[in-house]
Amino acid sequence: MSTHPFPAADLPMQAIGLLDRARTRSPRVHCLMNTVVQKLVADGLSALGAIPSMTSSTEEVQAFVGKADALVVNLGTLDAQRREAIGLALDAAEEGGKPWVLDPAHCDYSALRAAFAQELLARSPTILRANAAEHRLLQVPAGVVGVRTGEKDRIESGATTLLIGNGHPFMAKVTGTGCLSGAVIAAFTAVGDDPFIAAASAMLAMGIAAEIAARDAPGPASFGIALLDVLSGLTEADIIQNARLRNA
Amino acid sequence: MSTHPFPAADLPMQAIGLLDRARTRSPRVHCLMNTVVQKLVADGLSALGAIPSMTSSTEEVQAFVGKADALVVNLGTLDAQRREAIGLALDAAEEGGKPWVLDPAHCDYSALRAAFAQELLARSPTILRANAAEHRLLQVPAGVVGVRTGEKDRIESGATTLLIGNGHPFMAKVTGTGCLSGAVIAAFTAVGDDPFIAAASAMLAMGIAAEIAARDAPGPASFGIALLDVLSGLTEADIIQNARLRNA
Amino acid sequence: MSTHPFPAADLPMQAIGLLDRARTRSPRVHCLMNTVVQKLVADGLSALGAIPSMTSSTEEVQAFVGKADALVVNLGTLDAQRREAIGLALDAAEEGGKPWVLDPAHCDYSALRAAFAQELLARSPTILRANAAEHRLLQVPAGVVGVRTGEKDRIESGATTLLIGNGHPFMAKVTGTGCLSGAVIAAFTAVGDDPFIAAASAMLAMGIAAEIAARDAPGPASFGIALLDVLSGLTEADIIQNARLRNA
Repeated sequence: MSTHPFPAADLPMQAIGLLDRARTRSPRVHCLMNTVVQKLVADGLSALGAIPSMTSSTEEVQAFVGKADALVVNLGTLDAQRREAIGLALDAAEEGGKPWVLDPAHCDYSALRAAFAQELLARSPTILRANAAEHRLLQVPAGVVGVRTGEKDRIESGATTLLIGNGHPFMAKVTGTGCLSGAVIAAFTAVGDDPFIAAASAMLAMGIAAEIAARDAPGPASFGIALLDVLSGLTEADIIQNARLRNA
Repeated sequence: MSTHPFPAADLPMQAIGLLDRARTRSPRVHCLMNTVVQKLVADGLSALGAIPSMTSSTEEVQAFVGKADALVVNLGTLDAQRREAIGLALDAAEEGGKPWVLDPAHCDYSALRAAFAQELLARSPTILRANAAEHRLLQVPAGVVGVRTGEKDRIESGATTLLIGNGHPFMAKVTGTGCLSGAVIAAFTAVGDDPFIAAASAMLAMGIAAEIAARDAPGPASFGIALLDVLSGLTEADIIQNARLRNA
Repeated sequence: MSTHPFPAADLPMQAIGLLDRARTRSPRVHCLMNTVVQKLVADGLSALGAIPSMTSSTEEVQAFVGKADALVVNLGTLDAQRREAIGLALDAAEEGGKPWVLDPAHCDYSALRAAFAQELLARSPTILRANAAEHRLLQVPAGVVGVRTGEKDRIESGATTLLIGNGHPFMAKVTGTGCLSGAVIAAFTAVGDDPFIAAASAMLAMGIAAEIAARDAPGPASFGIALLDVLSGLTEADIIQNARLRNA
């Protein structure tokens, strides 16, 4: 758990450092994602320089997590087989001491999903990434870095809070950009030392990439393509010139 | 069932009205789709202003349909689990009095699929959307609006028939554009009063968007991206200037 | 098995002929692919002029393979149901005398996957397409054409070897381009007489399309779109002017 009062002004340089490390170290990120968003998340991680894997087979998931540097668990098409695969993946992540990100997508849509999200949260993910409606349903254990997405993204850890104002409404029009944020958080956590800084840096990089991508995009589908292109080439100057954030 | 002899010339203004309502009311559309097309359909619905959901888990599908304004059922990777999920989704749609669209995709490829499509059709979907080969295998109950896709799309309800000539050959090169049409029909039906007009309006809007998207597209993949961009910004003038339709 | 010492200089004209036949004959290719890459592979085959199908339902897969001209089997989310579906698909392909391509994707990630890949290989695919790490784990039976992907792609059959130097690093940034290569090999094998020539032609066409697509692409996601556009319009001149290959 981070207890430092981390100054917002320090984040851009941290984000630049993590972006660079992701590109040079190519962390492997295993993703348990619903089938809708798998391709965007895989291509987004690749654009960043990370290496995605995606299997949810109960027979294989532990071998894949064993080879990964971080794990992201996204609820989607949540049947018994998927729940079992998630449990096995978490066992492997815990055994290997690997960071993992929980994204309880749509846990406000069904009671089953909310209960399962809470169960997973009790296993202490490194980071919880959820929107306000999802957060409201969940009891976050101490020590978990919280990323509450919204018009401004709020990153919380102990007494420290950052608010990030970057992003673009087109993100809500492209299914999977939120899931990709979760995967980028996992990638940054894999190459960083501090989950709070990694989570905030990932949200900052995604938000800035979205703003730049939206500048010339005639519509949401073009934006989705440009987002990955921009992420792949995001520069130090892009981050420094566009960051909008503050402590709260 | 619609029994009015609906004049073709009235459709453009109806389509404009429904497009506007979809954008302002943001209907939720639950989609039971094969995994190949889920992302395109989700992003296409979002581009239109609707809100997609996609789970096919038997444990959750009823909660999701319960929160939706319309349902579209597409046959794809049709195993026992999927058939059960479809049955549960239809129970929830019937109980909630929600419109649903049946797209018996590829029911001409296997006897199992044809038999299951007929079984679903017996439950009286609001609208059946199928190509000629698929239609030929099925017995359509009275009261179901029929959309027969082809070089011209044929919308039928009782004694009224409309033929829509809009569309583009690139649509056949992008997997899922037909499935997206079914989902757009569901979205328009959710915000409209007359399933016949909603279905015809959706096919008109999709066909015109496809023509506009194809104008500057160097190939089918660019076209697939442009289709969603155009759908997102489709105007009254686009529809009025490009509609090609007649009664039959 | 091909035993001719096939001269590299003859490949471009063979590739042009197969590309033309794929466009005019529209072979049906059934694909057992993981859910991540299904859409790209389906759209890539369509761009080429082929007709994709994708179901992995154990109840339907044989009917679909029965209607197909070739089959490509890609390991992905390899659970018991998927393994059963693959076995059934191979039974149908063997019964119908249809060519099939094995792509043992990620068989170096888990022991289960490696063992299953070897089991499939013992059933003598027409063509094995794998990277060096995957190839190293597998015992290739005589008579199977080998495609070993890498910086240069190596096509081997008996005593004949071709090395193809075309391609672009962006391919590794777009999940599924390798799987699409396997599907294009299947399509060319369906319309060709010689699996060695078909496999080499497919790799040549894909490599050249990738180079052309990369010329104006600002990033990997734009490249992924351009790759399919270019594949759809690839000309005789494109192939003749860009081919880089030699015997080894």
